[in-house]
Amino acid sequence: MNDERAAPTVQDVSDWWSTAVSRIEPNVIELRGRPIQDLIGHLGFTGMIWLMLRGDVPTSAEEKLLEAALVSSVDHGPHAPSIAVARMAATCGVGLNNAVASAVNLLGDVHGGAGEQCMDLLAEITREATDEADADRAAAVVIARWQARSKYLPGFGHRFHTVDPRRDPLLDLVELAVADQVVAGDFLQAARAVERALSTGRTRPVPINIDGCTAVVYGELGFAAPLARGLFVLARSVGILAHAWEESGQGRRNKGPIPPSIQPTHLDGAGSV
Amino acid sequence: MNDERAAPTVQDVSDWWSTAVSRIEPNVIELRGRPIQDLIGHLGFTGMIWLMLRGDVPTSAEEKLLEAALVSSVDHGPHAPSIAVARMAATCGVGLNNAVASAVNLLGDVHGGAGEQCMDLLAEITREATDEADADRAAAVVIARWQARSKYLPGFGHRFHTVDPRRDPLLDLVELAVADQVVAGDFLQAARAVERALSTGRTRPVPINIDGCTAVVYGELGFAAPLARGLFVLARSVGILAHAWEESGQGRRNKGPIPPSIQPTHLDGAGSV
Amino acid sequence: MNDERAAPTVQDVSDWWSTAVSRIEPNVIELRGRPIQDLIGHLGFTGMIWLMLRGDVPTSAEEKLLEAALVSSVDHGPHAPSIAVARMAATCGVGLNNAVASAVNLLGDVHGGAGEQCMDLLAEITREATDEADADRAAAVVIARWQARSKYLPGFGHRFHTVDPRRDPLLDLVELAVADQVVAGDFLQAARAVERALSTGRTRPVPINIDGCTAVVYGELGFAAPLARGLFVLARSVGILAHAWEESGQGRRNKGPIPPSIQPTHLDGAGSV
Amino acid sequence: MNDERAAPTVQDVSDWWSTAVSRIEPNVIELRGRPIQDLIGHLGFTGMIWLMLRGDVPTSAEEKLLEAALVSSVDHGPHAPSIAVARMAATCGVGLNNAVASAVNLLGDVHGGAGEQCMDLLAEITREATDEADADRAAAVVIARWQARSKYLPGFGHRFHTVDPRRDPLLDLVELAVADQVVAGDFLQAARAVERALSTGRTRPVPINIDGCTAVVYGELGFAAPLARGLFVLARSVGILAHAWEESGQGRRNKGPIPPSIQPTHLDGAGSV
Repeated sequence: MNDERAAPTVQDVSDWWSTAVSRIEPNVIELRGRPIQDLIGHLGFTGMIWLMLRGDVPTSAEEKLLEAALVSSVDHGPHAPSIAVARMAATCGVGLNNAVASAVNLLGDVHGGAGEQCMDLLAEITREATDEADADRAAAVVIARWQARSKYLPGFGHRFHTVDPRRDPLLDLVELAVADQVVAGDFLQAARAVERALSTGRTRPVPINIDGCTAVVYGELGFAAPLARGLFVLARSVGILAHAWEESGQGRRNKGPIPPSIQPTHLDGAGSV
Repeated sequence: MNDERAAPTVQDVSDWWSTAVSRIEPNVIELRGRPIQDLIGHLGFTGMIWLMLRGDVPTSAEEKLLEAALVSSVDHGPHAPSIAVARMAATCGVGLNNAVASAVNLLGDVHGGAGEQCMDLLAEITREATDEADADRAAAVVIARWQARSKYLPGFGHRFHTVDPRRDPLLDLVELAVADQVVAGDFLQAARAVERALSTGRTRPVPINIDGCTAVVYGELGFAAPLARGLFVLARSVGILAHAWEESGQGRRNKGPIPPSIQPTHLDGAGSV
Repeated sequence: MNDERAAPTVQDVSDWWSTAVSRIEPNVIELRGRPIQDLIGHLGFTGMIWLMLRGDVPTSAEEKLLEAALVSSVDHGPHAPSIAVARMAATCGVGLNNAVASAVNLLGDVHGGAGEQCMDLLAEITREATDEADADRAAAVVIARWQARSKYLPGFGHRFHTVDPRRDPLLDLVELAVADQVVAGDFLQAARAVERALSTGRTRPVPINIDGCTAVVYGELGFAAPLARGLFVLARSVGILAHAWEESGQGRRNKGPIPPSIQPTHLDGAGSV
Repeated sequence: MNDERAAPTVQDVSDWWSTAVSRIEPNVIELRGRPIQDLIGHLGFTGMIWLMLRGDVPTSAEEKLLEAALVSSVDHGPHAPSIAVARMAATCGVGLNNAVASAVNLLGDVHGGAGEQCMDLLAEITREATDEADADRAAAVVIARWQARSKYLPGFGHRFHTVDPRRDPLLDLVELAVADQVVAGDFLQAARAVERALSTGRTRPVPINIDGCTAVVYGELGFAAPLARGLFVLARSVGILAHAWEESGQGRRNKGPIPPSIQPTHLDGAGSV
């Protein structure tokens, strides 16, 4: 008997990097099984995003809905840590790609994860609901379950905007898509049920925010929840790039977060272990 | 006389972060001076990229040309260091955004900079040429100048493809755009002149490669050269994300570059200072 | 009544960046309350790491123990995704700092998090144990609790080494430190109890691995668990830098994970949503 | 005749990852040819940095000098973009390693490259000088050459400190090392000659700054110029980690660069291409 492993082969090396996304051979580039020359000039960039992530091509109506969500997420100004980092990086003598990478790196669970978490929340409500009329009950059950862990519900409320200008245009587009039978409407219904539940008995409502709105779009379109963050990364990269580029034209070197004439407050104490 | 600097003010802090890209105030989001609610559902994602980087909106024909260049650049498989890094990162217990950032970070002067350098090369030829008939002479002059520094000309030749399948579709679209007076054709002409010059007297020609083709598109559309890299970052992020996402579904942990059964060759010698 | 917030002041801006770590003023640099000129030439680099993270200076014996853990973690060769990424990045035309950053970015929960998780495990055992004689019972209780969530216990077992050469030297140093009353020995005791429990009735034992050994050191020295990852980042950065530097001297451009002559295996199927 | 390439072998794969830095085999870890068990407890962390980068072990005097340079570079407060980015990243829901990576990524040519450039400057002067007495002439020649390209000389002058408190302790240690014949003194001499040249006829001198001081140390110790940046990355990572850790204990979420109550100034104009 011999329990030694077989010697590794070149085939093992090929298999180590196996992929269904792309086939690259001399003079051949196929993405998701489609020759690149059939895509260039025929598929839009948003359609390409869909194809690469899912393996098929969206309908025109699906593409438009995805496009609206991407457009709505490109930028939220220098108060967003990602945007600020892009601008600071652009003054430090690194490439534009490094500036973008530093910024994208900050789109973590707190800065870029609410959409993914909201998709999980809404999906749980759609599974809980027995039929359309059951949405409010299902929402109440799931909200209670989530709020037992944390009062904060991802995708609802905003520290800054009371009425987010991106909300109505996005939800209106989803409603139209439901009416046109492009999407089923389950995520929209769940989101509205949460909004109703959170606003009951309050003077200041807790509206669906932009993360909630895009979660509705991505959920209706059938994306997996982690791709909510992935798609946000693609969209926000546009604003990140635009800000890095603008800053690189302003000539600063080693831009810090505040003017050099203002000193950080010094805290006493040895600090924490 | 008093040479002390004035005490810093809150206005100084606002000015430190001044920007023309976005205006974000409670319930207001304007990008390049346009309310976000007027863009969602009306401007495509590629149009949004243009708007954010340049401040105006492209014509439909310009948008299509930009779109074709973006589509052509999304992926070149796991041999590309960026794609390999995205897949490895996805197995290390970091977020999708961190996987994308690690990968984008590799799109440096060598991996992602040829387009930018090629735009500089082609722009120099267009400035050198006195008129259309002068393209070959201008190309020869500029090629000689560049090759005095380095034999390698950015945007021409490929170590892998002899005929890159992305070349003809992209250049055909540029030619159509020239015919339709969407773009002027100077960069296309310069690129073809370089291609002719490099192939004269050679059995194996040195064709325009994908970096050269996209440089022609971005140059014709009037983008600044550094944005060739910026646009490549946006496009390649799509493939990076798709590969990271596929890999994260395959269940590996801490994926190295080769199967664990194959050991790196050990070099003797103390190493280098 | 007036519910408007007070207008922001420059003091608010200073407070936004308040810190006990450093005080930087013209001609003044104090770190953790100590003038930098009193540290240069007097405190070692490892002592400086301790001071910056904790606010006080270690004894010589504590510094030596920390130093041993750092030394043991600098490198594990190109099979480690972080090291491979550093080498690939170094061929892509980015700065050494970008190569290091890309690599450090991979030291996530799976690649760099086992030490932190192991510190939590061991700390839980020390809290569960009523006295020294109670270690095995406490370990059994806590192991059962952890294995109810996942069979895998962080810090124990290794897919590659059956006897990790770093184990005995590190644990011997901790034992010496316990004998010299430098540290209390609780984490060491807990780790040995887990090792005993995991090996009972098995032909192949599941030894403390390097993440477990360094977790013992950091725990004995009183570091917070998340700093196990932080210290690992500092240590591994040394190997990352050494590999990036070696690779940058080998002249490759755009190094992929495998030789260009070997193609990744192409998987059929449209892919996953 | 056959011009086909030979089929790739597993040996090619091993060779693709060949390295003199580390040998990792089951139960074997050798770094620069030395078993890890012989290093743990015997070599300090700074000695390990030297060993990994250069392949040999420093003398105790060399190690102390390197240590002083590392200690002097760990932090320069939140005005440094790297430190600010670390703190902002720590509030975005990413791992400590991701926070460190985002920050290290900013240590580019402008933020982290002056030491490397200064080493080149000083090395050029040492090559220009025929003997010790020739330093001032050699400095004048090289300064003129450099200032023909840019008025700014890397390693000299500081926008913030008029007398950098790190300068004298570092240069004093180098002088001691010269007196003890630990190092030759060429870089020190070159730096002092530049300082003299820049101060002649000026009321406000242009002293050697911290980048210049560490460049002198690294040059005297025989490091290659690009490692000035590499060593700075290792040193600054300590401050980066300390700040990220402090910030993560302060409970903020998505910390931007300025308090949310202060709005960035909005610039008019369509922006730049």
